[in-house]
Amino acid sequence: MKPYADRLAAAIERCGNPCLIGLDPHIDLLPEEFAIARDRSAPRAVRARAIGDFCLEIVALCRGRVPAVKPQSAFFEVFGADGAAQWERVVAAAHAADLLVIGDVKRGDIASTAAAYATAFLEGVGGDDPTLCDAVTLSPFLGADSIEPFLAACQRTGTGIYVLVRTSNKGSADFQRHGEPELSLRIADKVVAWGQSLRGASGWSSIGAVVGATHAAELRMFRERMPNTPLLLPGYGAQGAGAADIVDAFRNATGATQLAGALVNSSRGVLFAERDAAHKGKAWRTASRDALEHMIADITRALGVVGAAR
Amino acid sequence: MKPYADRLAAAIERCGNPCLIGLDPHIDLLPEEFAIARDRSAPRAVRARAIGDFCLEIVALCRGRVPAVKPQSAFFEVFGADGAAQWERVVAAAHAADLLVIGDVKRGDIASTAAAYATAFLEGVGGDDPTLCDAVTLSPFLGADSIEPFLAACQRTGTGIYVLVRTSNKGSADFQRHGEPELSLRIADKVVAWGQSLRGASGWSSIGAVVGATHAAELRMFRERMPNTPLLLPGYGAQGAGAADIVDAFRNATGATQLAGALVNSSRGVLFAERDAAHKGKAWRTASRDALEHMIADITRALGVVGAAR
Repeated sequence: MKPYADRLAAAIERCGNPCLIGLDPHIDLLPEEFAIARDRSAPRAVRARAIGDFCLEIVALCRGRVPAVKPQSAFFEVFGADGAAQWERVVAAAHAADLLVIGDVKRGDIASTAAAYATAFLEGVGGDDPTLCDAVTLSPFLGADSIEPFLAACQRTGTGIYVLVRTSNKGSADFQRHGEPELSLRIADKVVAWGQSLRGASGWSSIGAVVGATHAAELRMFRERMPNTPLLLPGYGAQGAGAADIVDAFRNATGATQLAGALVNSSRGVLFAERDAAHKGKAWRTASRDALEHMIADITRALGVVGAAR
Repeated sequence: MKPYADRLAAAIERCGNPCLIGLDPHIDLLPEEFAIARDRSAPRAVRARAIGDFCLEIVALCRGRVPAVKPQSAFFEVFGADGAAQWERVVAAAHAADLLVIGDVKRGDIASTAAAYATAFLEGVGGDDPTLCDAVTLSPFLGADSIEPFLAACQRTGTGIYVLVRTSNKGSADFQRHGEPELSLRIADKVVAWGQSLRGASGWSSIGAVVGATHAAELRMFRERMPNTPLLLPGYGAQGAGAADIVDAFRNATGATQLAGALVNSSRGVLFAERDAAHKGKAWRTASRDALEHMIADITRALGVVGAAR
């Protein structure tokens, strides 16, 4: 398969926007139609199926409109093996809808275990497996030897990773800003080094970084420090960041906009749009579709690219 | 349920040793009897079942001999939903064998996602669930707000967590020793603070810390800094640490040995003992049982406690 970096750049180009939709099927927030997921007396497999059904509807909304989706492992794991089966169903459906799949798993472990996680999410244990991801998020806390098995897997399979550098939550400052220079910068430099041998024809690397859009003032610095690293920006929408906050993540050294430089993620803002005052009274599908289109228009306008609005 | 801290102390007391067996069913290392796990042409469910069968044999060996087992999520996740079903089977079997179960999952995410992980592993989505763990390992990289949902879950359910403070691998120095004071110390102080409100009648907290036994010179310092924190010490055996390296983790300020102060983990050294020269020629079960008994004798001797050897 072509390197993840190039497949990502092509998908962003094709869609004309860098929007990423997080598939976080939080059972407490699901539309009423999927209320069985919350019913503690229903069989677990039935409850799990409801979150899969919901995600498949979101995948259908995303088809042809955005380059990628990002399922969040935790919300599937609440249903154990039944949830894992739905994770696989959702990943396969997203691939079938021509969407790149970034598994938001934030794994991180010693090398022998990291190799097993790379097998689980990127490489597979046999045959062509539609339930594998195109990329996964990883926590770098255990150090370089915890990332290296993934670099090897990315080389072999044309997949990618996004290493957590500075997360979007408030508590990210507790440890990620520790030290002088702060830990996030040290990690950023490692991400650049890890990514050197995984540069695609597009110039971008398959080794990306997660930097919260909620830290707008730092985005320019991270962009400059990791010039060939695709960024994944959580925090837009429900977590508080706006379109104006993310533009620096897309500017190269000369100030030109590089649409493939980052993915802007929204999860709750699209999935649970029916709960927002802005969409009051709409059916959930309409609310979510409108929220998705609004996000695309909002981001492309801020970036000054030709709109891809319908 | 009683607090994890007290259930752990009672289990260690009952067994007379603080040995923890890691259930890492690495398919490449499984005894020949389970070779179907490696067979890429076999159905995935059959391959996954083989790792479950193997773990159940190890659980049977551990029954009544050690206080706890630690299944490693990654080695189950390689088989997707089929692996998740085996994870549940192994956790339930370990509970049935009166073993505490520490899920080695090293999760770490923003608060809303962390809450879902706490549900997945500690709290469940409904009813009495034998597939839940007594405790899980967590990565603190995302900060305090990524740990807090677990503290609340531990309070509600009498479960525990082990926060990664200083891992056993070589690469742990890359980021965990960053800054002045080094990041690990800062995390250790947070672990103590998080654990204050979760102290059991035994005096120990349900909030533990992972500190690699491979860093023998640092163990005394970590023990002093976290006096009421149960430690989980990976690195004994295959990773290179010996019994003499771990004794400081069990000494209180007066130098007395506190058996409940730590768990010493071995995974490959017991599971795949047939591969060690010391057990050459033995059937795998005999090799693993002998390795388990050797570990128990080795650790109790080093700690100077009355041996629990058979």
